[in-house]
Amino acid sequence: MAEDRPKRMAIVVSKNTVDMAYPPLILASAGVAMGMEVALFFTFWGMDIIKKGKADKLKLPGMMRLFTGMMKGKMKKAGMAQLSELIKNSKELGVKFYACGATIDVMGIKKEDLIPEVDDILGAASFLEFAQDADITLFI
Amino acid sequence: MAEDRPKRMAIVVSKNTVDMAYPPLILASAGVAMGMEVALFFTFWGMDIIKKGKADKLKLPGMMRLFTGMMKGKMKKAGMAQLSELIKNSKELGVKFYACGATIDVMGIKKEDLIPEVDDILGAASFLEFAQDADITLFI
Amino acid sequence: MAEDRPKRMAIVVSKNTVDMAYPPLILASAGVAMGMEVALFFTFWGMDIIKKGKADKLKLPGMMRLFTGMMKGKMKKAGMAQLSELIKNSKELGVKFYACGATIDVMGIKKEDLIPEVDDILGAASFLEFAQDADITLFI
Repeated sequence: MAEDRPKRMAIVVSKNTVDMAYPPLILASAGVAMGMEVALFFTFWGMDIIKKGKADKLKLPGMMRLFTGMMKGKMKKAGMAQLSELIKNSKELGVKFYACGATIDVMGIKKEDLIPEVDDILGAASFLEFAQDADITLFI
Repeated sequence: MAEDRPKRMAIVVSKNTVDMAYPPLILASAGVAMGMEVALFFTFWGMDIIKKGKADKLKLPGMMRLFTGMMKGKMKKAGMAQLSELIKNSKELGVKFYACGATIDVMGIKKEDLIPEVDDILGAASFLEFAQDADITLFI
Repeated sequence: MAEDRPKRMAIVVSKNTVDMAYPPLILASAGVAMGMEVALFFTFWGMDIIKKGKADKLKLPGMMRLFTGMMKGKMKKAGMAQLSELIKNSKELGVKFYACGATIDVMGIKKEDLIPEVDDILGAASFLEFAQDADITLFI
Protein backbone atom coordinates (compact mmCIF):
# COMPACT_ATOMS: atom_id res chain seq x y z
CA MET A 1 0.00 0.00 0.00
CA ALA A 2 1.21 3.43 -0.87
CA GLU A 3 1.74 5.63 2.18
CA ASP A 4 0.92 8.86 0.36
CA ARG A 5 -2.80 8.24 -0.03
CA PRO A 6 -5.52 8.75 2.56
CA LYS A 7 -6.64 5.84 4.72
CA ARG A 8 -9.62 4.04 3.22
CA MET A 9 -12.69 2.31 4.73
CA ALA A 10 -15.14 0.01 2.94
CA ILE A 11 -18.35 -1.03 4.70
CA VAL A 12 -21.04 -3.44 3.50
CA VAL A 13 -24.42 -2.39 4.94
CA SER A 14 -26.71 -5.43 4.94
CA LYS A 15 -29.35 -4.84 7.64
CA ASN A 16 -32.41 -2.58 7.87
CA THR A 17 -32.86 -2.21 11.61
CA VAL A 18 -32.10 0.99 13.54
CA ASP A 19 -29.36 -0.65 15.60
CA MET A 20 -27.48 -1.84 12.52
CA ALA A 21 -28.14 1.26 10.36
CA TYR A 22 -26.48 3.71 12.75
CA PRO A 23 -23.05 2.04 13.08
CA PRO A 24 -22.05 2.27 9.38
CA LEU A 25 -23.23 5.88 9.15
CA ILE A 26 -21.55 6.94 12.41
CA LEU A 27 -18.30 5.21 11.40
CA ALA A 28 -18.50 6.71 7.90
CA SER A 29 -19.08 10.22 9.26
CA ALA A 30 -16.22 9.90 11.74
CA GLY A 31 -13.99 8.46 9.02
CA VAL A 32 -14.43 11.22 6.45
CA ALA A 33 -14.06 13.83 9.21
CA MET A 34 -10.63 12.28 9.88
CA GLY A 35 -9.70 12.55 6.19
CA MET A 36 -10.44 8.96 5.20
CA GLU A 37 -11.94 7.82 1.89
CA VAL A 38 -15.15 5.99 2.78
CA ALA A 39 -17.52 3.89 0.67
CA LEU A 40 -20.76 2.30 1.87
CA PHE A 41 -22.08 -0.61 -0.17
CA PHE A 42 -25.78 -1.24 0.55
CA THR A 43 -27.04 -4.77 -0.04
CA PHE A 44 -30.03 -7.01 0.79
CA TRP A 45 -32.09 -5.54 3.69
CA GLY A 46 -29.63 -2.64 3.93
CA MET A 47 -31.11 -1.31 0.71
CA ASP A 48 -34.04 0.02 2.77
CA ILE A 49 -31.73 2.66 4.26
CA ILE A 50 -31.22 4.25 0.85
CA LYS A 51 -34.81 4.01 -0.38
CA LYS A 52 -36.63 7.34 -0.46
CA GLY A 53 -38.39 8.17 2.80
CA LYS A 54 -37.40 4.95 4.59
CA ALA A 55 -34.31 5.70 6.73
CA ASP A 56 -36.14 7.48 9.54
CA LYS A 57 -38.88 4.83 9.66
CA LEU A 58 -36.66 1.85 10.42
CA LYS A 59 -37.41 -0.20 13.53
CA LEU A 60 -35.44 -2.19 16.10
CA PRO A 61 -35.23 -5.95 15.36
CA GLY A 62 -37.54 -8.72 16.58
CA MET A 63 -39.43 -8.14 19.80
CA MET A 64 -37.46 -4.93 20.43
CA ARG A 65 -39.45 -3.45 17.56
CA LEU A 66 -42.02 -2.19 20.07
CA PHE A 67 -39.36 -0.11 21.82
CA THR A 68 -38.20 1.71 18.69
CA GLY A 69 -39.88 4.98 19.65
CA MET A 70 -38.39 4.92 23.12
CA MET A 71 -34.90 4.23 21.75
CA LYS A 72 -35.21 7.02 19.17
CA GLY A 73 -36.32 9.38 21.95
CA LYS A 74 -33.20 8.54 23.96
CA MET A 75 -31.02 9.03 20.89
CA LYS A 76 -32.52 12.43 20.22
CA LYS A 77 -32.09 13.43 23.86
CA ALA A 78 -28.41 12.41 23.65
CA GLY A 79 -28.00 14.75 20.66
CA MET A 80 -27.75 12.03 18.02
CA ALA A 81 -28.81 13.01 14.49
CA GLN A 82 -31.56 11.15 12.61
CA LEU A 83 -30.41 8.64 10.01
CA SER A 84 -31.53 10.88 7.12
CA GLU A 85 -29.40 13.71 8.50
CA LEU A 86 -26.39 11.43 8.95
CA ILE A 87 -26.78 10.32 5.33
CA LYS A 88 -27.00 13.92 4.09
CA ASN A 89 -24.09 15.13 6.20
CA SER A 90 -21.77 12.22 5.47
CA LYS A 91 -22.50 12.56 1.75
CA GLU A 92 -21.57 16.25 1.87
CA LEU A 93 -18.31 15.30 3.59
CA GLY A 94 -17.51 12.87 0.77
CA VAL A 95 -18.79 9.44 1.78
CA LYS A 96 -19.66 7.39 -1.32
CA PHE A 97 -23.01 5.57 -1.40
CA TYR A 98 -23.25 2.48 -3.60
CA ALA A 99 -26.27 0.22 -4.15
CA CYS A 100 -25.83 -3.51 -4.82
CA GLY A 101 -26.84 -4.32 -8.38
CA ALA A 102 -27.82 -7.92 -7.64
CA THR A 103 -30.21 -6.85 -4.86
CA ILE A 104 -31.79 -4.30 -7.19
CA ASP A 105 -32.34 -7.01 -9.81
CA VAL A 106 -33.74 -9.56 -7.35
CA MET A 107 -36.04 -7.17 -5.53
CA GLY A 108 -37.11 -5.21 -8.60
CA ILE A 109 -36.04 -1.86 -7.15
CA LYS A 110 -36.04 1.09 -9.54
CA LYS A 111 -33.30 3.71 -9.60
CA GLU A 112 -35.90 6.40 -8.89
CA ASP A 113 -36.83 4.60 -5.65
CA LEU A 114 -33.37 5.42 -4.28
CA ILE A 115 -32.34 8.62 -2.51
CA PRO A 116 -30.31 11.12 -4.57
CA GLU A 117 -27.27 10.59 -2.34
CA VAL A 118 -26.65 7.23 -4.09
CA ASP A 119 -23.60 7.61 -6.33
CA ASP A 120 -23.92 4.46 -8.36
CA ILE A 121 -25.19 0.89 -8.65
CA LEU A 122 -22.35 -1.62 -8.46
CA GLY A 123 -21.67 -5.33 -8.60
CA ALA A 124 -19.68 -7.31 -6.03
CA ALA A 125 -16.52 -7.11 -8.15
CA SER A 126 -16.54 -3.30 -8.17
CA PHE A 127 -16.97 -3.25 -4.42
CA LEU A 128 -14.05 -5.67 -3.99
CA GLU A 129 -11.83 -3.51 -6.17
CA PHE A 130 -12.32 -0.65 -3.74
CA ALA A 131 -12.20 -2.85 -0.63
CA GLN A 132 -9.01 -4.72 -1.53
CA ASP A 133 -7.04 -1.50 -1.06
CA ALA A 134 -8.95 -0.39 2.04
CA ASP A 135 -7.41 -0.23 5.51
CA ILE A 136 -10.70 -1.00 7.27
CA THR A 137 -13.26 -3.45 5.85
CA LEU A 138 -16.47 -4.23 7.72
CA PHE A 139 -19.66 -6.18 7.05
CA ILE A 140 -22.51 -4.77 9.13
CA MET B 1 2.81 -6.68 2.81
CA ALA B 2 4.56 -8.00 -0.22
CA GLU B 3 3.22 -6.49 -3.44
CA ASP B 4 3.99 -9.53 -5.55
CA ARG B 5 1.35 -11.82 -4.12
CA PRO B 6 -2.36 -11.91 -4.98
CA LYS B 7 -4.84 -9.93 -2.90
CA ARG B 8 -6.34 -12.01 -0.15
CA MET B 9 -9.82 -12.13 1.47
CA ALA B 10 -10.79 -13.91 4.71
CA ILE B 11 -14.46 -14.22 5.64
CA VAL B 12 -16.01 -15.68 8.79
CA VAL B 13 -19.42 -17.16 7.96
CA SER B 14 -21.46 -17.33 11.18
CA LYS B 15 -25.15 -17.31 10.16
CA ASN B 16 -27.46 -19.93 8.62
CA THR B 17 -30.13 -17.78 6.99
CA VAL B 18 -30.47 -17.30 3.23
CA ASP B 19 -29.79 -13.55 3.44
CA MET B 20 -26.51 -14.05 5.29
CA ALA B 21 -25.40 -17.19 3.38
CA TYR B 22 -25.40 -15.54 -0.04
CA PRO B 23 -23.09 -12.57 0.67
CA PRO B 24 -19.98 -14.59 1.63
CA LEU B 25 -20.43 -16.92 -1.34
CA ILE B 26 -21.06 -14.10 -3.81
CA LEU B 27 -18.09 -12.11 -2.51
CA ALA B 28 -15.91 -15.25 -2.55
CA SER B 29 -16.92 -16.10 -6.13
CA ALA B 30 -16.28 -12.54 -7.31
CA GLY B 31 -12.97 -12.45 -5.42
CA VAL B 32 -11.46 -15.62 -6.91
CA ALA B 33 -12.68 -14.56 -10.37
CA MET B 34 -10.58 -11.40 -9.88
CA GLY B 35 -7.53 -13.47 -8.95
CA MET B 36 -7.79 -13.15 -5.17
CA GLU B 37 -6.98 -15.87 -2.64
CA VAL B 38 -10.18 -16.44 -0.67
CA ALA B 39 -10.87 -18.46 2.46
CA LEU B 40 -14.26 -18.96 4.11
CA PHE B 41 -14.25 -19.98 7.76
CA PHE B 42 -17.61 -21.47 8.79
CA THR B 43 -18.54 -21.21 12.46
CA PHE B 44 -21.56 -21.54 14.79
CA TRP B 45 -24.84 -21.39 12.79
CA GLY B 46 -22.84 -20.92 9.59
CA MET B 47 -21.83 -24.56 9.84
CA ASP B 48 -25.27 -25.46 8.44
CA ILE B 49 -24.20 -24.11 5.05
CA ILE B 50 -21.52 -26.80 4.75
CA LYS B 51 -23.55 -29.71 6.12
CA LYS B 52 -24.59 -32.22 3.47
CA GLY B 53 -27.93 -31.37 1.88
CA LYS B 54 -28.57 -28.24 3.94
CA ALA B 55 -27.48 -25.21 1.87
CA ASP B 56 -30.49 -25.12 -0.42
CA LYS B 57 -32.93 -25.61 2.48
CA LEU B 58 -31.95 -22.54 4.46
CA LYS B 59 -34.67 -20.03 5.36
CA LEU B 60 -34.94 -16.28 5.84
CA PRO B 61 -34.63 -15.12 9.49
CA GLY B 62 -37.44 -14.58 12.01
CA MET B 63 -40.87 -13.74 10.68
CA MET B 64 -39.46 -13.43 7.15
CA ARG B 65 -39.07 -17.22 7.22
CA LEU B 66 -42.52 -17.53 5.66
CA PHE B 67 -41.39 -15.57 2.60
CA THR B 68 -38.35 -17.75 1.88
CA GLY B 69 -39.97 -19.44 -1.13
CA MET B 70 -41.00 -16.12 -2.63
CA MET B 71 -37.49 -14.68 -2.19
CA LYS B 72 -35.88 -17.77 -3.73
CA GLY B 73 -38.27 -17.49 -6.66
CA LYS B 74 -37.20 -13.88 -7.24
CA MET B 75 -33.54 -14.86 -7.00
CA LYS B 76 -33.98 -17.63 -9.54
CA LYS B 77 -35.83 -15.27 -11.88
CA ALA B 78 -32.96 -12.76 -11.59
CA GLY B 79 -30.56 -15.50 -12.70
CA MET B 80 -28.95 -16.07 -9.31
CA ALA B 81 -27.48 -19.53 -8.70
CA GLN B 82 -28.58 -21.73 -5.79
CA LEU B 83 -26.28 -21.80 -2.76
CA SER B 84 -25.13 -25.36 -3.52
CA GLU B 85 -24.10 -24.27 -7.03
CA LEU B 86 -22.26 -21.22 -5.69
CA ILE B 87 -20.38 -23.48 -3.28
CA LYS B 88 -19.47 -25.93 -6.05
CA ASN B 89 -18.43 -23.22 -8.50
CA SER B 90 -16.43 -21.13 -6.04
CA LYS B 91 -14.62 -24.25 -4.82
CA GLU B 92 -13.66 -25.10 -8.42
CA LEU B 93 -12.30 -21.57 -8.83
CA GLY B 94 -10.13 -22.03 -5.75
CA VAL B 95 -12.06 -20.73 -2.73
CA LYS B 96 -10.96 -22.55 0.43
CA PHE B 97 -13.65 -23.91 2.76
CA TYR B 98 -12.73 -24.31 6.44
CA ALA B 99 -14.91 -25.58 9.28
CA CYS B 100 -14.47 -24.26 12.83
CA GLY B 101 -13.08 -26.99 15.07
CA ALA B 102 -14.63 -25.59 18.27
CA THR B 103 -18.12 -25.57 16.74
CA ILE B 104 -17.66 -29.16 15.59
CA ASP B 105 -16.68 -30.20 19.11
CA VAL B 106 -19.53 -28.32 20.80
CA MET B 107 -22.24 -29.43 18.40
CA GLY B 108 -20.95 -32.98 17.98
CA ILE B 109 -20.76 -32.72 14.19
CA LYS B 110 -18.99 -35.55 12.39
CA LYS B 111 -16.60 -35.00 9.49
CA GLU B 112 -18.82 -37.17 7.27
CA ASP B 113 -21.73 -34.77 7.91
CA LEU B 114 -19.85 -32.08 5.98
CA ILE B 115 -19.90 -31.54 2.22
CA PRO B 116 -16.82 -32.74 0.30
CA GLU B 117 -15.92 -29.16 -0.61
CA VAL B 118 -14.63 -28.61 2.96
CA ASP B 119 -10.83 -28.45 2.84
CA ASP B 120 -10.07 -28.77 6.52
CA ILE B 121 -11.20 -28.30 10.12
CA LEU B 122 -9.33 -25.42 11.76
CA GLY B 123 -9.07 -23.59 15.07
CA ALA B 124 -9.30 -19.82 15.54
CA ALA B 125 -5.50 -19.45 15.53
CA SER B 126 -5.17 -21.03 12.07
CA PHE B 127 -7.86 -18.73 10.74
CA LEU B 128 -6.09 -15.70 12.21
CA GLU B 129 -2.80 -16.73 10.60
CA PHE B 130 -4.47 -16.51 7.21
CA ALA B 131 -6.52 -13.42 8.05
CA GLN B 132 -3.65 -11.34 9.44
CA ASP B 133 -2.15 -11.14 5.96
CA ALA B 134 -5.47 -10.62 4.19
CA ASP B 135 -6.46 -7.39 2.47
CA ILE B 136 -10.17 -7.84 3.18
CA THR B 137 -11.46 -9.37 6.42
CA LEU B 138 -15.19 -9.71 7.08
CA PHE B 139 -17.41 -11.31 9.71
CA ILE B 140 -20.78 -12.18 8.23
CA MET C 1 2.50 -0.55 7.31
CA ALA C 2 5.68 -0.98 9.26
CA GLU C 3 6.83 -4.59 9.37
CA ASP C 4 8.50 -4.26 12.76
CA ARG C 5 5.34 -3.97 14.83
CA PRO C 6 3.02 -6.77 15.96
CA LYS C 7 -0.02 -7.65 13.87
CA ARG C 8 -3.11 -5.82 15.05
CA MET C 9 -6.81 -6.76 15.25
CA ALA C 10 -9.75 -4.40 15.87
CA ILE C 11 -13.21 -5.87 16.52
CA VAL C 12 -16.51 -4.04 17.00
CA VAL C 13 -18.76 -6.09 19.32
CA SER C 14 -22.36 -5.06 18.70
CA LYS C 15 -24.57 -7.98 19.77
CA ASN C 16 -25.61 -9.38 23.16
CA THR C 17 -26.48 -12.98 22.33
CA VAL C 18 -24.33 -15.96 23.33
CA ASP C 19 -23.61 -16.93 19.71
CA MET C 20 -22.27 -13.47 18.85
CA ALA C 21 -20.50 -12.82 22.18
CA TYR C 22 -18.19 -15.85 21.94
CA PRO C 23 -16.60 -15.16 18.52
CA PRO C 24 -14.98 -11.80 19.40
CA LEU C 25 -13.66 -13.16 22.70
CA ILE C 26 -12.36 -16.39 21.17
CA LEU C 27 -10.69 -14.51 18.31
CA ALA C 28 -9.27 -11.94 20.75
CA SER C 29 -7.86 -14.66 23.03
CA ALA C 30 -6.33 -16.52 20.10
CA GLY C 31 -4.95 -13.27 18.69
CA VAL C 32 -3.11 -12.10 21.82
CA ALA C 33 -1.79 -15.63 22.36
CA MET C 34 -0.21 -15.30 18.89
CA GLY C 35 1.39 -11.98 19.86
CA MET C 36 -1.16 -9.69 18.22
CA GLU C 37 -2.35 -6.35 19.59
CA VAL C 38 -6.12 -6.70 20.02
CA ALA C 39 -8.81 -4.14 20.86
CA LEU C 40 -12.50 -4.87 21.36
CA PHE C 41 -14.89 -1.94 20.95
CA PHE C 42 -18.27 -2.68 22.58
CA THR C 43 -21.26 -0.81 21.18
CA PHE C 44 -25.09 -0.93 21.22
CA TRP C 45 -26.35 -4.35 22.46
CA GLY C 46 -22.74 -5.51 22.80
CA MET C 47 -22.45 -3.26 25.83
CA ASP C 48 -24.31 -5.94 27.83
CA ILE C 49 -21.23 -8.16 27.65
CA ILE C 50 -19.20 -5.66 29.67
CA LYS C 51 -21.89 -4.77 32.21
CA LYS C 52 -21.24 -6.20 35.66
CA GLY C 53 -22.77 -9.65 36.14
CA LYS C 54 -24.27 -9.91 32.65
CA ALA C 55 -21.85 -11.87 30.44
CA ASP C 56 -22.73 -15.32 31.79
CA LYS C 57 -26.47 -14.60 31.65
CA LEU C 58 -26.70 -13.88 27.93
CA LYS C 59 -29.14 -15.94 25.86
CA LEU C 60 -29.32 -17.29 22.31
CA PRO C 61 -31.28 -15.07 19.87
CA GLY C 62 -34.99 -15.27 18.99
CA MET C 63 -36.73 -18.59 19.41
CA MET C 64 -33.39 -20.29 20.12
CA ARG C 65 -33.46 -18.46 23.46
CA LEU C 66 -35.17 -21.49 24.99
CA PHE C 67 -32.22 -23.70 24.11
CA THR C 68 -29.60 -21.48 25.77
CA GLY C 69 -29.10 -23.82 28.73
CA MET C 70 -28.67 -26.81 26.46
CA MET C 71 -26.11 -24.98 24.32
CA LYS C 72 -24.17 -23.80 27.36
CA GLY C 73 -24.14 -27.38 28.65
CA LYS C 74 -22.64 -28.58 25.37
CA MET C 75 -20.06 -25.80 25.46
CA LYS C 76 -19.02 -26.71 28.99
CA LYS C 77 -18.77 -30.40 28.05
CA ALA C 78 -16.52 -29.46 25.12
CA GLY C 79 -14.22 -27.66 27.56
CA MET C 80 -15.15 -24.13 26.51
CA ALA C 81 -14.71 -21.41 29.14
CA GLN C 82 -17.58 -19.20 30.29
CA LEU C 83 -17.71 -15.71 28.80
CA SER C 84 -16.66 -14.08 32.10
CA GLU C 85 -13.56 -16.30 32.19
CA LEU C 86 -12.71 -15.52 28.56
CA ILE C 87 -12.96 -11.80 29.38
CA LYS C 88 -10.74 -12.16 32.43
CA ASN C 89 -8.16 -14.31 30.66
CA SER C 90 -7.98 -12.26 27.48
CA LYS C 91 -7.64 -9.07 29.52
CA GLU C 92 -4.70 -10.61 31.42
CA LEU C 93 -3.08 -11.51 28.10
CA GLY C 94 -3.39 -7.87 26.96
CA VAL C 95 -6.66 -7.50 25.04
CA LYS C 96 -7.96 -3.92 25.32
CA PHE C 97 -11.62 -3.42 26.22
CA TYR C 98 -13.26 -0.18 25.07
CA ALA C 99 -16.84 0.97 25.61
CA CYS C 100 -18.62 3.12 23.02
CA GLY C 101 -19.21 6.61 24.42
CA ALA C 102 -22.27 7.30 22.28
CA THR C 103 -24.02 4.13 23.50
CA ILE C 104 -23.24 5.08 27.09
CA ASP C 105 -24.79 8.51 26.55
CA VAL C 106 -27.89 7.19 24.77
CA MET C 107 -28.58 4.34 27.20
CA GLY C 108 -27.63 6.27 30.33
CA ILE C 109 -25.07 3.67 31.43
CA LYS C 110 -22.80 4.65 34.33
CA LYS C 111 -19.10 3.88 34.41
CA GLU C 112 -19.62 1.91 37.65
CA ASP C 113 -22.06 -0.39 35.80
CA LEU C 114 -19.16 -1.65 33.70
CA ILE C 115 -16.77 -4.48 34.59
CA PRO C 116 -13.30 -3.44 35.80
CA GLU C 117 -11.70 -4.97 32.68
CA VAL C 118 -12.92 -1.97 30.63
CA ASP C 119 -9.89 0.19 29.79
CA ASP C 120 -11.65 3.29 28.57
CA ILE C 121 -14.73 4.89 27.04
CA LEU C 122 -14.08 5.97 23.46
CA GLY C 123 -15.79 7.66 20.53
CA ALA C 124 -15.94 6.30 16.98
CA ALA C 125 -12.96 8.45 15.91
CA SER C 126 -10.68 6.92 18.55
CA PHE C 127 -11.71 3.45 17.47
CA LEU C 128 -11.00 4.30 13.82
CA GLU C 129 -7.55 5.61 14.71
CA PHE C 130 -6.68 2.19 16.07
CA ALA C 131 -8.52 0.27 13.37
CA GLN C 132 -7.00 2.11 10.40
CA ASP C 133 -3.63 0.54 11.20
CA ALA C 134 -5.04 -2.88 12.03
CA ASP C 135 -4.43 -5.98 9.91
CA ILE C 136 -7.77 -7.55 10.79
CA THR C 137 -10.95 -5.50 11.25
CA LEU C 138 -14.28 -7.16 12.04
CA PHE C 139 -17.79 -6.03 12.96
CA ILE C 140 -19.54 -8.75 14.96
